Amino acid sequence: MNYPSKLIENAVEEISKLPGIGKKTALRMALHLLKRDEKQTLSLSEALTAMRTKTQYCRQCHNISDDILCGICTNPKRDESVVCVVEDTRDVLAIENTSQFRGLYHVLGGIISPLEGVGPADLNIESLLSRITEKQSGDSAIKEIILGLSPTMEGDTTAFYLTKRLKPLNVKITTIARGIPIGGDLEYADEITLGRSIVSRIVYE
Amino acid sequence: MNYPSKLIENAVEEISKLPGIGKKTALRMALHLLKRDEKQTLSLSEALTAMRTKTQYCRQCHNISDDILCGICTNPKRDESVVCVVEDTRDVLAIENTSQFRGLYHVLGGIISPLEGVGPADLNIESLLSRITEKQSGDSAIKEIILGLSPTMEGDTTAFYLTKRLKPLNVKITTIARGIPIGGDLEYADEITLGRSIVSRIVYE
Repeated sequence: MNYPSKLIENAVEEISKLPGIGKKTALRMALHLLKRDEKQTLSLSEALTAMRTKTQYCRQCHNISDDILCGICTNPKRDESVVCVVEDTRDVLAIENTSQFRGLYHVLGGIISPLEGVGPADLNIESLLSRITEKQSGDSAIKEIILGLSPTMEGDTTAFYLTKRLKPLNVKITTIARGIPIGGDLEYADEITLGRSIVSRIVYE
Repeated sequence: MNYPSKLIENAVEEISKLPGIGKKTALRMALHLLKRDEKQTLSLSEALTAMRTKTQYCRQCHNISDDILCGICTNPKRDESVVCVVEDTRDVLAIENTSQFRGLYHVLGGIISPLEGVGPADLNIESLLSRITEKQSGDSAIKEIILGLSPTMEGDTTAFYLTKRLKPLNVKITTIARGIPIGGDLEYADEITLGRSIVSRIVYE
């Protein structure tokens, strides 16, 4: 495309590097910003720069944080004995939004995926193990590790690897339940999910 | 949503002001930028700021431009006697990509839309009229105005208003053809388009 201005071309080029944004959408965004108040573009630029340069990762759980330790790890009301292992920050947000979990998290920062060249060494796995062994005695000992990974090939591989590493550490290992989603119709559930939900059926007490 | 960091929350807030971007997509983009090299975010921010603060509008045709006059208006190979009136820069790009038009443009900067509170005074219409009257004598006189507006309610309203204002100026007024798109199937064309394409049928010469 022949952009009318080098400045636009540059902006379109940079915007279209974002995930899911093509050249046409990027151009629409650039023209939108041009029509709006200059302040909007400036505060967008500043927010992006500030986020990228100032965001830290929590030293304990590796979640995104404004400080050395994140708000969840420093919250005295959370249960330190249960740690939920997740792939990334979005999963923490998703679980937090349910308000059903009062423990802490451990963000792996990815998932084992040989196809994308991500191995165990690229993830925050060693720090999870040392987090467990360091606190093995005392009040703040970790008693349960919940694997909150997606039920995909990569998620299952990561879960398998983690259970192998976690077993010698003498903690209870659990995983979030797989089954028919609430409101889902049995008839339309896929066979694997339905099969698993029968095998790991829940006993009424 | 409870964002893990004020910086992220801020960035998500700003990104989601872009057209077609919701909070979830904005968060995905923010986390994407956090995973990538810091340089990518910085050059995105800089490109946006530079675009917004340095972009000018061509004094003659109001298209986006790096200089006082745009590359099309200053190109000696373009035919000054034909001016195509369009809604915005995207339309200029679309027509330029066809390589079928060698005249100049006039960008209205919008379209008459009473519902959105856009009236004729908000558009670059007076400058179009003065552009025609100023050059009425001499080699660079404008002989034809092509209305390159979308065949929508707003486009038709704008076209109607423009023809009323342009008539006294003694220029030929034309509009881009409406009809069945090339490759389109007659059977699936909507009734209005098909009807118009019969009324304004083209005579084989």
